[in-house]
Amino acid sequence: MAIIMQEPALMEFLARDFAQVADDFTITRVEEDLLEVRLNVEDRHLRPGGTVSGPSMFALADVAVYLAILSRLGPVALAVTTNCSIDFMRKPAAGRALVAQARLLKLGRVLAVGDVLIRSEGESAPVARAGLTYSIPPAR
Amino acid sequence: MAIIMQEPALMEFLARDFAQVADDFTITRVEEDLLEVRLNVEDRHLRPGGTVSGPSMFALADVAVYLAILSRLGPVALAVTTNCSIDFMRKPAAGRALVAQARLLKLGRVLAVGDVLIRSEGESAPVARAGLTYSIPPAR
Amino acid sequence: MAIIMQEPALMEFLARDFAQVADDFTITRVEEDLLEVRLNVEDRHLRPGGTVSGPSMFALADVAVYLAILSRLGPVALAVTTNCSIDFMRKPAAGRALVAQARLLKLGRVLAVGDVLIRSEGESAPVARAGLTYSIPPAR
Amino acid sequence: MAIIMQEPALMEFLARDFAQVADDFTITRVEEDLLEVRLNVEDRHLRPGGTVSGPSMFALADVAVYLAILSRLGPVALAVTTNCSIDFMRKPAAGRALVAQARLLKLGRVLAVGDVLIRSEGESAPVARAGLTYSIPPAR
Repeated sequence: MAIIMQEPALMEFLARDFAQVADDFTITRVEEDLLEVRLNVEDRHLRPGGTVSGPSMFALADVAVYLAILSRLGPVALAVTTNCSIDFMRKPAAGRALVAQARLLKLGRVLAVGDVLIRSEGESAPVARAGLTYSIPPAR
Repeated sequence: MAIIMQEPALMEFLARDFAQVADDFTITRVEEDLLEVRLNVEDRHLRPGGTVSGPSMFALADVAVYLAILSRLGPVALAVTTNCSIDFMRKPAAGRALVAQARLLKLGRVLAVGDVLIRSEGESAPVARAGLTYSIPPAR
Repeated sequence: MAIIMQEPALMEFLARDFAQVADDFTITRVEEDLLEVRLNVEDRHLRPGGTVSGPSMFALADVAVYLAILSRLGPVALAVTTNCSIDFMRKPAAGRALVAQARLLKLGRVLAVGDVLIRSEGESAPVARAGLTYSIPPAR
Repeated sequence: MAIIMQEPALMEFLARDFAQVADDFTITRVEEDLLEVRLNVEDRHLRPGGTVSGPSMFALADVAVYLAILSRLGPVALAVTTNCSIDFMRKPAAGRALVAQARLLKLGRVLAVGDVLIRSEGESAPVARAGLTYSIPPAR
């Protein structure tokens, strides 16, 4: 399915509709079968010991698949997350950004499904994986 | 399994080890088969439109089961979340706190499993449900 | 939400539309907030060592929530499972039936969500828990 | 991590330890980052209408990741499935085998995590995806 929103339009959308978190993220790739988002790790994302918190990784996974859907449906989309199953597999490397790579596996009339691998920047072993489902509202 | 940490000890643990988020939560019940935590909703938990964000609900579900484990294992526990599957079922009521009720379904030697229902305070229909798994580190 | 199909009608539906598996199951309770199904364990459900296989427990969880939806929507329903997250927590007791208790947490226009606890008959500790989502086809 | 069991040894293991289901599956690829298994669809795997049942797809996902673990750990392994989250995304093509491609994302001391895409043979759009976790018993 063709991409109809590229990185600048997606960032603009985030900045306007998700103002509180838009600064956390940088979109680094928007391709047919891969959207990549970077979490710019700040103190507020950390747990004691310096690892990125679970909710911050959840937010990264969620925003990555959400943007992948948006890149195909355009800015009218108001997809709502209905399910997320996330596995935390390794401790993220301290002081390193996290990079999420999202694939869109289904973009149906009422449901979209994607999955995500999250890695510490520069590492190959994933720290987390997630599968997410979104409900697509009826077209207006 | 007997409860060995009650609400004051659990709150103290949160305040010390999860200082950044401890103020978000109030523990309202600690029982054999139910631990209840309230998310004191602030602007930082909200999405445009005034509903509580997915990551905030994830954090609430996670802390609720984590505290249920802690209440049985005591403060030496450093359980690590390994999996969470969460269903977002309804929009939370605007301007209302969220209440999570967690059950511990298994507390094994290496894994603990719990589930959670999250409701808007005063409502009966759940806004979210989650199942979480934790890895229990070997005893010291 | 009122129950519009009771146990005999549900069993009849299973026997007609799921002939291959209907004999595996007995519906033992149909209530407003609980539907209970028993898996009559046969050799074909077992793994080496005599425990019930994962796919058999998945099938039991799925049929329990499916029947709970059907009991509210009636026989016109053709709900389709879209997601299942299942935790296997304990080894089922050998030579014992499994009993699933399902709750319907949401019955929306397009999605239904339920969860299930599975126990060995006569035991209180659950062997598995699952959350399931179904897509509800548009009304005819 | 090196592969220490190839396809013939894996099939032999299945035939001996999972005699009831071994005939359902054919292992078609065993590589460092991919293990592929084919479900030879028979009548007993079908639902009314001729599509493969959910439990059959669950079984296929489970066996694929299980074999991927086994291919690295060798035949002493007795990994136990602890969690599976599966998304059913499309109706499988009628009268077609299903092919599962599994990746091992983590092989730790106590937990292994993998994910799977299932497709109808010859199709590119996946019919299901799953993430699975296994508990690895202590080495003997």
